[in-house]
Amino acid sequence: MAANLPELRIVPLPDLPEVRPGHDLAALLMEAAGRAVGGGLADGDILVVTHKVVAKAEGCVVDLRTVQPSPFARVYAERWGKDARQVEVVLRESARIVRMDRGVMICETRHGFVCANAGVDRSNAGAEETVVTLPPDPDASARRLREALIGGSGRRLAVVISDTFGRPWREGLTNVAIGCSGLRPLRDERGQVDAQGYRLEVSVLAVADELASAAELAMGKLGGVPAALIRGYEYEDGEGSARELVRAPEKDIFR
Amino acid sequence: MAANLPELRIVPLPDLPEVRPGHDLAALLMEAAGRAVGGGLADGDILVVTHKVVAKAEGCVVDLRTVQPSPFARVYAERWGKDARQVEVVLRESARIVRMDRGVMICETRHGFVCANAGVDRSNAGAEETVVTLPPDPDASARRLREALIGGSGRRLAVVISDTFGRPWREGLTNVAIGCSGLRPLRDERGQVDAQGYRLEVSVLAVADELASAAELAMGKLGGVPAALIRGYEYEDGEGSARELVRAPEKDIFR
Repeated sequence: MAANLPELRIVPLPDLPEVRPGHDLAALLMEAAGRAVGGGLADGDILVVTHKVVAKAEGCVVDLRTVQPSPFARVYAERWGKDARQVEVVLRESARIVRMDRGVMICETRHGFVCANAGVDRSNAGAEETVVTLPPDPDASARRLREALIGGSGRRLAVVISDTFGRPWREGLTNVAIGCSGLRPLRDERGQVDAQGYRLEVSVLAVADELASAAELAMGKLGGVPAALIRGYEYEDGEGSARELVRAPEKDIFR
Repeated sequence: MAANLPELRIVPLPDLPEVRPGHDLAALLMEAAGRAVGGGLADGDILVVTHKVVAKAEGCVVDLRTVQPSPFARVYAERWGKDARQVEVVLRESARIVRMDRGVMICETRHGFVCANAGVDRSNAGAEETVVTLPPDPDASARRLREALIGGSGRRLAVVISDTFGRPWREGLTNVAIGCSGLRPLRDERGQVDAQGYRLEVSVLAVADELASAAELAMGKLGGVPAALIRGYEYEDGEGSARELVRAPEKDIFR
């Protein structure tokens, strides 16, 4: 079983221009891949792209100077030293607040993701007084990007769109998948048998999240590199959805 | 900033023998690295090793036939169709139960890790009727392993010991770091400034967890490959502890 396992390569794709609405992100990524690896994209490659560059290409940016905060946003912002306009955008992006404590807003987004500030982020937003929101349908964004990449390269590819989330109980953020196309985000090993004949019970691995985390390591600091190429990971083909990574509320003992 | 970023290689280290108490794990890993990469270990390499192989080398295995379950373990096991002896081991490994619901035990271990079943695992335990427990001090395990690897290879190395944890809100497991030596597990970007001059607020990345997740992708299915070598990641040197990845209970709004 263990013989001839391939090694993985994780190649950063730096030097993309500042992405603006309407930019052809697929073309920019193909050019970057051509610079980064000899021969450019190859069959089986996975492109991991931070949501921020996707969101900016799709125009998911809000100029805070246009935002009128609600009274609730004002009170909360004042209490915790936040920008009331940014709090207002967070509330608009939220379907539900999971926790609102000690100046931290853990929100459930319209997609079902549970994360700080509903994914609204001010860093690397591309302009001052501006925040970036999550794309409305990150799976659809991944699908469109994948189709454009396949159309341009003729290769069999998968796309993962990543964001940086915190988690309970553990310090530090990790990158996770919020959209994917062309691969199954979960690798299900249940029912398989280990070397001692013990049937594995709960082994469903969130490989799309692990791919997002692996890519983060290659992207380096400060969000300056918005994409990485992963080569050598033998993923399960399929039109998976990153929504599969969201635990259904009725199954979630921590919601 | 983005220029000349190195690419990462993640190389599986297969074909280790079944590890038993007293086995020289460092020697086995060096041999495996010698087979997997030309020239063997190099300066800057990170060895990610699953806790299970470390635990087995340290004798952290329990023969369930020697375990007398408590009445509490019996009642719980009967209700949820579990092995009462295994439930008993989980309770002995726990400092506290965080949630006990729907047949799932989310435990706080003596180390402070919050995970299912206090890290007690029956799969790939090396023998029937046997479970593997977490090493008593995974940082110390990592330190000893790193010292032996440096002694044997003369290279500057880091070691991460990984386990497979679930998480609230998201489906699927990912590998995280439960022990480390030779690198800082958190990469702190706070106070740095992005391309628009915006000061990053909460960017502390849990790179040791991301390294563990990246390694899992190369280890493949069913736990047959217990280690991987990561080359090209420019980590911050330091005698970090994986306990830094544990959020202090007083800071944790989900504890």
